[in-house]
Amino acid sequence: MKVHTEYLTVHTQRRYDWVHLTPQIEDIVARSGVQDGMVLVNPMHITASVFVNDHEHGLLEDFGRWLERLAPHDPDPKAYAHHRTGEDNADAHLKRQLMGREACLAITAGKLDLGTWEAVYYGEFDGRRDKRVLVKVLGI
Amino acid sequence: MKVHTEYLTVHTQRRYDWVHLTPQIEDIVARSGVQDGMVLVNPMHITASVFVNDHEHGLLEDFGRWLERLAPHDPDPKAYAHHRTGEDNADAHLKRQLMGREACLAITAGKLDLGTWEAVYYGEFDGRRDKRVLVKVLGI
Amino acid sequence: MKVHTEYLTVHTQRRYDWVHLTPQIEDIVARSGVQDGMVLVNPMHITASVFVNDHEHGLLEDFGRWLERLAPHDPDPKAYAHHRTGEDNADAHLKRQLMGREACLAITAGKLDLGTWEAVYYGEFDGRRDKRVLVKVLGI
Repeated sequence: MKVHTEYLTVHTQRRYDWVHLTPQIEDIVARSGVQDGMVLVNPMHITASVFVNDHEHGLLEDFGRWLERLAPHDPDPKAYAHHRTGEDNADAHLKRQLMGREACLAITAGKLDLGTWEAVYYGEFDGRRDKRVLVKVLGI
Repeated sequence: MKVHTEYLTVHTQRRYDWVHLTPQIEDIVARSGVQDGMVLVNPMHITASVFVNDHEHGLLEDFGRWLERLAPHDPDPKAYAHHRTGEDNADAHLKRQLMGREACLAITAGKLDLGTWEAVYYGEFDGRRDKRVLVKVLGI
Repeated sequence: MKVHTEYLTVHTQRRYDWVHLTPQIEDIVARSGVQDGMVLVNPMHITASVFVNDHEHGLLEDFGRWLERLAPHDPDPKAYAHHRTGEDNADAHLKRQLMGREACLAITAGKLDLGTWEAVYYGEFDGRRDKRVLVKVLGI
Protein backbone atom coordinates (compact mmCIF):
# COMPACT_ATOMS: atom_id res chain seq x y z
CA MET A 1 0.00 0.00 0.00
CA LYS A 2 1.17 3.50 -0.90
CA VAL A 3 0.15 6.73 0.81
CA HIS A 4 1.06 10.11 -0.70
CA THR A 5 0.22 13.51 0.79
CA GLU A 6 0.36 17.05 -0.57
CA TYR A 7 -1.01 20.39 0.62
CA LEU A 8 -2.38 23.06 -1.68
CA THR A 9 -2.71 26.74 -0.77
CA VAL A 10 -5.72 28.74 -1.93
CA HIS A 11 -6.00 32.52 -1.55
CA THR A 12 -9.07 34.19 -3.04
CA GLN A 13 -9.41 37.93 -3.59
CA ARG A 14 -13.09 37.82 -2.68
CA ARG A 15 -14.77 36.78 0.56
CA TYR A 16 -16.92 34.24 -1.33
CA ASP A 17 -15.35 32.46 -4.26
CA TRP A 18 -14.93 29.20 -6.15
CA VAL A 19 -11.67 27.56 -7.27
CA HIS A 20 -11.54 24.67 -9.74
CA LEU A 21 -9.18 22.03 -8.30
CA THR A 22 -9.50 19.09 -10.71
CA PRO A 23 -6.24 19.72 -12.65
CA GLN A 24 -4.18 19.99 -9.45
CA ILE A 25 -5.73 16.82 -7.99
CA GLU A 26 -5.03 14.98 -11.24
CA ASP A 27 -1.36 16.03 -11.04
CA ILE A 28 -1.05 14.85 -7.43
CA VAL A 29 -2.62 11.49 -8.30
CA ALA A 30 -0.10 11.10 -11.15
CA ARG A 31 2.82 11.97 -8.85
CA SER A 32 1.60 9.49 -6.20
CA GLY A 33 2.11 6.52 -8.52
CA VAL A 34 -1.11 4.99 -7.16
CA GLN A 35 -2.88 2.92 -9.84
CA ASP A 36 -5.94 1.79 -7.89
CA GLY A 37 -7.30 3.43 -4.76
CA MET A 38 -8.79 6.71 -3.62
CA VAL A 39 -7.89 10.28 -2.79
CA LEU A 40 -9.23 12.33 0.11
CA VAL A 41 -9.42 16.10 -0.52
CA ASN A 42 -10.45 18.46 2.27
CA PRO A 43 -9.92 22.07 3.33
CA MET A 44 -8.06 22.35 6.63
CA HIS A 45 -10.39 25.24 7.48
CA ILE A 46 -13.97 25.30 8.72
CA THR A 47 -15.28 28.11 6.52
CA ALA A 48 -14.61 26.35 3.20
CA SER A 49 -15.71 23.22 1.33
CA VAL A 50 -14.35 20.76 -1.18
CA PHE A 51 -17.18 19.36 -3.30
CA VAL A 52 -17.91 17.81 -6.67
CA ASN A 53 -20.31 19.46 -9.06
CA ASP A 54 -20.45 21.16 -12.46
CA HIS A 55 -17.63 23.22 -14.00
CA GLU A 56 -20.17 25.85 -15.15
CA HIS A 57 -20.06 29.47 -14.03
CA GLY A 58 -23.81 30.08 -14.08
CA LEU A 59 -24.34 27.23 -11.64
CA LEU A 60 -21.65 28.62 -9.34
CA GLU A 61 -23.57 31.93 -9.30
CA ASP A 62 -26.71 29.98 -8.43
CA PHE A 63 -24.88 28.22 -5.58
CA GLY A 64 -23.79 31.60 -4.19
CA ARG A 65 -27.29 33.09 -4.22
CA TRP A 66 -28.86 29.91 -2.84
CA LEU A 67 -26.35 29.63 0.03
CA GLU A 68 -26.97 33.29 0.89
CA ARG A 69 -30.71 32.62 1.04
CA LEU A 70 -30.39 29.52 3.28
CA ALA A 71 -27.52 30.80 5.45
CA PRO A 72 -27.38 34.61 5.19
CA HIS A 73 -24.34 36.71 6.03
CA ASP A 74 -25.19 39.18 8.78
CA PRO A 75 -22.25 40.85 10.55
CA ASP A 76 -24.53 42.18 13.34
CA PRO A 77 -23.05 40.99 16.66
CA LYS A 78 -26.53 39.80 17.67
CA ALA A 79 -27.33 37.99 14.42
CA TYR A 80 -25.50 34.83 15.46
CA ALA A 81 -24.30 33.61 18.87
CA HIS A 82 -20.92 32.88 17.25
CA HIS A 83 -20.45 36.63 16.81
CA ARG A 84 -20.08 37.06 20.60
CA THR A 85 -16.51 35.86 20.02
CA GLY A 86 -15.86 38.93 17.84
CA GLU A 87 -16.21 36.98 14.58
CA ASP A 88 -18.62 38.04 11.83
CA ASN A 89 -18.54 34.84 9.79
CA ALA A 90 -21.10 32.46 11.33
CA ASP A 91 -22.76 32.26 7.90
CA ALA A 92 -19.54 30.79 6.47
CA HIS A 93 -19.67 27.89 8.95
CA LEU A 94 -23.29 27.19 7.98
CA LYS A 95 -22.61 27.46 4.24
CA ARG A 96 -19.75 24.99 4.65
CA GLN A 97 -22.15 22.44 6.19
CA LEU A 98 -24.51 22.78 3.22
CA MET A 99 -21.72 22.22 0.70
CA GLY A 100 -19.90 19.57 2.77
CA ARG A 101 -16.29 19.31 3.97
CA GLU A 102 -14.49 16.71 1.90
CA ALA A 103 -14.51 14.67 -1.28
CA CYS A 104 -13.37 11.05 -1.54
CA LEU A 105 -12.55 10.31 -5.17
CA ALA A 106 -11.78 6.96 -6.76
CA ILE A 107 -8.56 6.29 -8.68
CA THR A 108 -8.62 3.60 -11.38
CA ALA A 109 -5.84 2.77 -13.85
CA GLY A 110 -3.69 5.54 -12.40
CA LYS A 111 -6.24 8.31 -12.97
CA LEU A 112 -9.08 10.07 -11.16
CA ASP A 113 -12.15 7.97 -11.92
CA LEU A 114 -14.68 10.78 -12.36
CA GLY A 115 -17.83 10.91 -14.46
CA THR A 116 -17.85 13.13 -17.55
CA TRP A 117 -19.18 16.21 -15.79
CA GLU A 118 -17.76 15.71 -12.31
CA ALA A 119 -15.41 18.57 -11.37
CA VAL A 120 -13.69 19.07 -8.01
CA TYR A 121 -14.26 22.52 -6.54
CA TYR A 122 -13.07 24.47 -3.54
CA GLY A 123 -15.79 26.72 -2.12
CA GLU A 124 -14.54 29.70 -0.12
CA PHE A 125 -16.92 31.40 2.30
CA ASP A 126 -14.47 33.59 4.23
CA GLY A 127 -11.51 34.26 1.99
CA ARG A 128 -8.91 36.93 1.35
CA ARG A 129 -6.31 34.93 3.29
CA ASP A 130 -4.26 31.77 2.77
CA LYS A 131 -6.18 28.54 3.23
CA ARG A 132 -4.74 25.05 3.00
CA VAL A 133 -6.24 22.01 1.27
CA LEU A 134 -5.04 18.53 2.21
CA VAL A 135 -4.80 15.88 -0.51
CA LYS A 136 -4.05 12.31 0.58
CA VAL A 137 -3.82 9.46 -1.94
CA LEU A 138 -4.16 5.85 -0.72
CA GLY A 139 -3.92 2.69 -2.79
CA ILE A 140 -1.73 0.26 -4.67
CA MET B 1 -4.09 -4.54 0.27
CA LYS B 2 -6.91 -5.39 -2.13
CA VAL B 3 -8.85 -2.96 -4.28
CA HIS B 4 -12.00 -4.05 -6.13
CA THR B 5 -14.13 -1.85 -8.39
CA GLU B 6 -17.57 -2.27 -9.94
CA TYR B 7 -19.99 0.08 -11.68
CA LEU B 8 -23.76 -0.06 -11.30
CA THR B 9 -26.24 1.42 -13.76
CA VAL B 10 -29.41 3.11 -12.49
CA HIS B 11 -32.25 4.20 -14.76
CA THR B 12 -35.33 5.66 -13.11
CA GLN B 13 -38.67 6.16 -14.86
CA ARG B 14 -39.30 9.36 -12.95
CA ARG B 15 -37.31 12.60 -12.91
CA TYR B 16 -37.03 12.40 -9.08
CA ASP B 17 -36.70 8.97 -7.54
CA TRP B 18 -35.01 6.82 -4.90
CA VAL B 19 -33.26 3.47 -5.40
CA HIS B 20 -32.30 1.20 -2.52
CA LEU B 21 -28.70 0.05 -3.12
CA THR B 22 -27.80 -1.86 0.04
CA PRO B 23 -28.25 -5.40 -1.41
CA GLN B 24 -26.09 -4.64 -4.45
CA ILE B 25 -23.34 -3.08 -2.31
CA GLU B 26 -23.40 -6.12 -0.01
CA ASP B 27 -22.93 -8.40 -3.03
CA ILE B 28 -19.98 -6.34 -4.31
CA VAL B 29 -18.33 -6.41 -0.88
CA ALA B 30 -18.73 -10.20 -0.79
CA ARG B 31 -17.24 -10.56 -4.30
CA SER B 32 -14.28 -8.31 -3.36
CA GLY B 33 -13.02 -10.76 -0.75
CA VAL B 34 -12.15 -7.80 1.52
CA GLN B 35 -12.55 -8.74 5.19
CA ASP B 36 -11.64 -5.43 6.82
CA GLY B 37 -11.69 -2.04 5.12
CA MET B 38 -14.11 0.36 3.51
CA VAL B 39 -16.16 0.91 0.39
CA LEU B 40 -16.67 4.19 -1.44
CA VAL B 41 -20.00 4.53 -3.28
CA ASN B 42 -20.70 7.59 -5.45
CA PRO B 43 -22.77 8.54 -8.46
CA MET B 44 -20.62 9.53 -11.45
CA HIS B 45 -23.19 12.25 -12.16
CA ILE B 46 -23.74 15.64 -10.58
CA THR B 47 -27.53 15.55 -10.35
CA ALA B 48 -27.71 12.52 -8.04
CA SER B 49 -26.62 11.48 -4.55
CA VAL B 50 -25.58 8.38 -2.67
CA PHE B 51 -26.54 8.68 0.98
CA VAL B 52 -27.37 6.62 4.05
CA ASN B 53 -30.72 6.99 5.77
CA ASP B 54 -33.91 5.04 6.51
CA HIS B 55 -35.42 2.34 4.27
CA GLU B 56 -38.90 3.82 4.85
CA HIS B 57 -41.11 5.12 2.06
CA GLY B 58 -42.84 7.84 4.07
CA LEU B 59 -39.48 9.40 4.88
CA LEU B 60 -38.46 9.30 1.22
CA GLU B 61 -41.65 11.26 0.41
CA ASP B 62 -40.68 13.75 3.11
CA PHE B 63 -37.20 14.11 1.61
CA GLY B 64 -38.74 14.86 -1.78
CA ARG B 65 -41.06 17.59 -0.48
CA TRP B 66 -38.35 19.09 1.71
CA LEU B 67 -35.80 19.24 -1.10
CA GLU B 68 -38.39 20.89 -3.33
CA ARG B 69 -38.98 23.53 -0.66
CA LEU B 70 -35.28 24.29 -0.12
CA ALA B 71 -34.18 23.97 -3.76
CA PRO B 72 -37.24 24.34 -6.00
CA HIS B 73 -37.46 23.14 -9.58
CA ASP B 74 -38.18 26.04 -11.90
CA PRO B 75 -37.58 25.46 -15.63
CA ASP B 76 -37.90 29.20 -16.38
CA PRO B 77 -34.71 30.21 -18.27
CA LYS B 78 -34.37 33.16 -15.87
CA ALA B 79 -34.94 31.23 -12.64
CA TYR B 80 -31.32 30.07 -12.43
CA ALA B 81 -28.17 31.35 -14.14
CA HIS B 82 -27.36 27.71 -15.03
CA HIS B 83 -30.37 27.73 -17.36
CA ARG B 84 -28.56 30.12 -19.72
CA THR B 85 -26.77 26.98 -20.94
CA GLY B 86 -30.10 25.56 -22.10
CA GLU B 87 -30.45 23.26 -19.10
CA ASP B 88 -33.54 23.28 -16.86
CA ASN B 89 -32.10 21.27 -13.98
CA ALA B 90 -30.26 23.72 -11.70
CA ASP B 91 -32.47 22.52 -8.83
CA ALA B 92 -31.04 19.01 -9.26
CA HIS B 93 -27.49 20.30 -8.67
CA LEU B 94 -28.65 22.09 -5.49
CA LYS B 95 -30.62 19.09 -4.22
CA ARG B 96 -27.55 16.92 -4.74
CA GLN B 97 -25.51 19.23 -2.48
CA LEU B 98 -28.13 18.93 0.28
CA MET B 99 -28.13 15.14 0.12
CA GLY B 100 -24.36 14.79 -0.46
CA ARG B 101 -22.37 13.03 -3.14
CA GLU B 102 -20.85 9.89 -1.70
CA ALA B 103 -20.95 7.38 1.14
CA CYS B 104 -17.89 5.77 2.72
CA LEU B 105 -18.98 2.58 4.47
CA ALA B 106 -16.98 0.37 6.79
CA ILE B 107 -16.41 -3.34 6.13
CA THR B 108 -15.78 -5.61 9.13
CA ALA B 109 -15.54 -9.41 9.14
CA GLY B 110 -16.22 -9.46 5.39
CA LYS B 111 -19.51 -7.56 5.60
CA LEU B 112 -20.85 -4.01 5.43
CA ASP B 113 -20.62 -2.73 9.00
CA LEU B 114 -23.88 -0.75 9.09
CA GLY B 115 -26.13 0.07 12.04
CA THR B 116 -29.52 -1.66 12.23
CA TRP B 117 -31.41 1.02 10.35
CA GLU B 118 -28.70 2.30 8.03
CA ALA B 119 -29.65 1.79 4.38
CA VAL B 120 -27.69 2.95 1.33
CA TYR B 121 -29.78 4.94 -1.13
CA TYR B 122 -29.33 6.50 -4.53
CA GLY B 123 -31.22 9.78 -4.88
CA GLU B 124 -32.08 10.76 -8.44
CA PHE B 125 -32.89 14.40 -9.18
CA ASP B 126 -32.76 14.36 -12.99
CA GLY B 127 -33.53 10.83 -14.11
CA ARG B 128 -35.10 9.02 -17.03
CA ARG B 129 -31.66 8.16 -18.42
CA ASP B 130 -28.80 5.81 -17.55
CA LYS B 131 -26.65 6.93 -14.66
CA ARG B 132 -23.57 5.15 -13.33
CA VAL B 133 -22.62 4.52 -9.71
CA LEU B 134 -19.01 3.72 -8.83
CA VAL B 135 -18.30 1.23 -6.04
CA LYS B 136 -14.70 0.83 -4.90
CA VAL B 137 -13.74 -1.54 -2.09
CA LEU B 138 -10.39 -1.09 -0.31
CA GLY B 139 -8.95 -3.21 2.49
CA ILE B 140 -7.36 -6.47 3.51
CA MET C 1 -1.73 -2.26 5.43
CA LYS C 2 -3.27 -2.04 8.89
CA VAL C 3 -6.96 -1.70 9.70
CA HIS C 4 -8.11 -0.94 13.24
CA THR C 5 -11.74 -0.59 14.37
CA GLU C 6 -13.36 0.72 17.55
CA TYR C 7 -16.91 1.64 18.51
CA LEU C 8 -17.82 4.55 20.76
CA THR C 9 -21.10 4.90 22.63
CA VAL C 10 -22.77 8.30 22.97
CA HIS C 11 -25.77 8.94 25.22
CA THR C 12 -27.03 12.51 25.46
CA GLN C 13 -29.44 13.75 28.12
CA ARG C 14 -31.14 16.04 25.63
CA ARG C 15 -32.98 15.24 22.41
CA TYR C 16 -30.69 17.62 20.47
CA ASP C 17 -27.08 17.86 21.56
CA TRP C 18 -23.45 18.10 20.49
CA VAL C 19 -20.53 15.95 21.65
CA HIS C 20 -16.90 16.83 20.98
CA LEU C 21 -15.17 13.67 19.71
CA THR C 22 -11.67 14.87 18.74
CA PRO C 23 -9.84 13.59 21.86
CA GLN C 24 -11.36 10.12 21.56
CA ILE C 25 -10.54 9.90 17.85
CA GLU C 26 -6.96 11.00 18.57
CA ASP C 27 -6.64 8.19 21.15
CA ILE C 28 -7.96 5.59 18.71
CA VAL C 29 -5.54 6.75 16.00
CA ALA C 30 -2.66 6.43 18.51
CA ARG C 31 -3.78 2.92 19.51
CA SER C 32 -4.06 1.86 15.85
CA GLY C 33 -0.34 2.35 15.24
CA VAL C 34 -1.15 3.77 11.79
CA GLN C 35 1.40 6.41 10.77
CA ASP C 36 -0.02 7.43 7.41
CA GLY C 37 -3.58 6.90 6.24
CA MET C 38 -7.09 7.94 7.11
CA VAL C 39 -9.86 7.34 9.61
CA LEU C 40 -13.56 7.00 8.87
CA VAL C 41 -15.89 8.17 11.66
CA ASN C 42 -19.66 7.69 11.34
CA PRO C 43 -22.70 7.26 13.55
CA MET C 44 -24.35 3.87 13.10
CA HIS C 45 -27.70 5.66 13.42
CA ILE C 46 -29.68 7.72 10.94
CA THR C 47 -30.72 10.56 13.25
CA ALA C 48 -27.18 11.75 14.04
CA SER C 49 -24.16 13.18 12.25
CA VAL C 50 -20.40 13.21 12.54
CA PHE C 51 -19.00 16.44 11.14
CA VAL C 52 -16.03 18.78 11.36
CA ASN C 53 -16.48 22.38 12.40
CA ASP C 54 -15.61 24.82 15.20
CA HIS C 55 -15.20 23.89 18.88
CA GLU C 56 -17.18 27.00 19.87
CA HIS C 57 -20.40 26.89 21.84
CA GLY C 58 -22.01 29.96 20.30
CA LEU C 59 -21.70 28.40 16.86
CA LEU C 60 -23.25 25.15 18.09
CA GLU C 61 -26.25 27.21 19.31
CA ASP C 62 -26.43 28.78 15.86
CA PHE C 63 -26.37 25.35 14.23
CA GLY C 64 -29.28 24.25 16.43
CA ARG C 65 -31.46 27.25 15.59
CA TRP C 66 -30.59 27.09 11.90
CA LEU C 67 -31.37 23.37 11.61
CA GLU C 68 -34.69 23.95 13.34
CA ARG C 69 -35.51 26.67 10.81
CA LEU C 70 -34.61 24.56 7.76
CA ALA C 71 -35.95 21.22 9.09
CA PRO C 72 -38.43 21.92 11.89
CA HIS C 73 -39.46 19.42 14.52
CA ASP C 74 -43.22 18.83 14.40
CA PRO C 75 -44.56 15.78 16.21
CA ASP C 76 -47.97 16.10 14.52
CA PRO C 77 -48.72 12.74 12.87
CA LYS C 78 -49.64 14.64 9.69
CA ALA C 79 -46.59 16.92 9.61
CA TYR C 80 -44.41 14.31 7.93
CA ALA C 81 -45.28 11.11 6.04
CA HIS C 82 -42.65 9.32 8.15
CA HIS C 83 -44.90 9.86 11.19
CA ARG C 84 -47.44 7.37 9.79
CA THR C 85 -45.05 4.72 11.17
CA GLY C 86 -45.66 6.05 14.69
CA GLU C 87 -42.35 7.97 14.80
CA ASP C 88 -42.18 11.68 15.59
CA ASN C 89 -38.60 12.29 14.47
CA ALA C 90 -38.69 12.96 10.72
CA ASP C 91 -36.96 16.28 11.41
CA ALA C 92 -33.97 14.38 12.83
CA HIS C 93 -33.51 12.49 9.54
CA LEU C 94 -33.59 15.79 7.61
CA LYS C 95 -31.21 17.54 10.02
CA ARG C 96 -28.79 14.64 9.64
CA GLN C 97 -28.73 15.14 5.86
CA LEU C 98 -27.88 18.85 6.31
CA MET C 99 -25.00 18.08 8.67
CA GLY C 100 -23.82 14.96 6.80
CA ARG C 101 -23.23 11.39 7.95
CA GLU C 102 -19.50 10.78 8.17
CA ALA C 103 -16.07 12.36 8.34
CA CYS C 104 -12.97 10.99 6.61
CA LEU C 105 -9.91 12.41 8.34
CA ALA C 106 -6.28 12.21 7.27
CA ILE C 107 -3.57 10.72 9.47
CA THR C 108 0.02 11.93 8.95
CA ALA C 109 3.07 11.11 11.09
CA GLY C 110 0.89 9.03 13.41
CA LYS C 111 -1.57 11.83 14.21
CA LEU C 112 -4.87 13.27 13.01
CA ASP C 113 -3.89 15.76 10.31
CA LEU C 114 -6.44 18.48 11.11
CA GLY C 115 -6.23 22.23 10.56
CA THR C 116 -5.89 24.48 13.62
CA TRP C 117 -9.62 24.98 14.14
CA GLU C 118 -10.96 21.69 12.82
CA ALA C 119 -12.82 19.78 15.55
CA VAL C 120 -14.71 16.50 15.14
CA TYR C 121 -18.26 16.65 16.47
CA TYR C 122 -21.13 14.25 16.93
CA GLY C 123 -24.49 15.93 16.32
CA GLU C 124 -27.45 14.27 18.03
CA PHE C 125 -30.95 14.96 16.72
CA ASP C 126 -32.92 12.25 18.57
CA GLY C 127 -31.01 11.42 21.73
CA ARG C 128 -31.68 10.22 25.26
CA ARG C 129 -30.62 6.69 24.31
CA ASP C 130 -27.39 4.86 23.50
CA LYS C 131 -26.01 5.51 20.03
CA ARG C 132 -22.91 3.93 18.53
CA VAL C 133 -20.17 5.62 16.51
CA LEU C 134 -17.90 3.53 14.29
CA VAL C 135 -14.23 4.51 13.96
CA LYS C 136 -12.14 2.67 11.37
CA VAL C 137 -8.48 3.50 10.80
CA LEU C 138 -6.78 2.42 7.55
CA GLY C 139 -3.16 2.94 6.54
CA ILE C 140 0.43 1.96 7.02
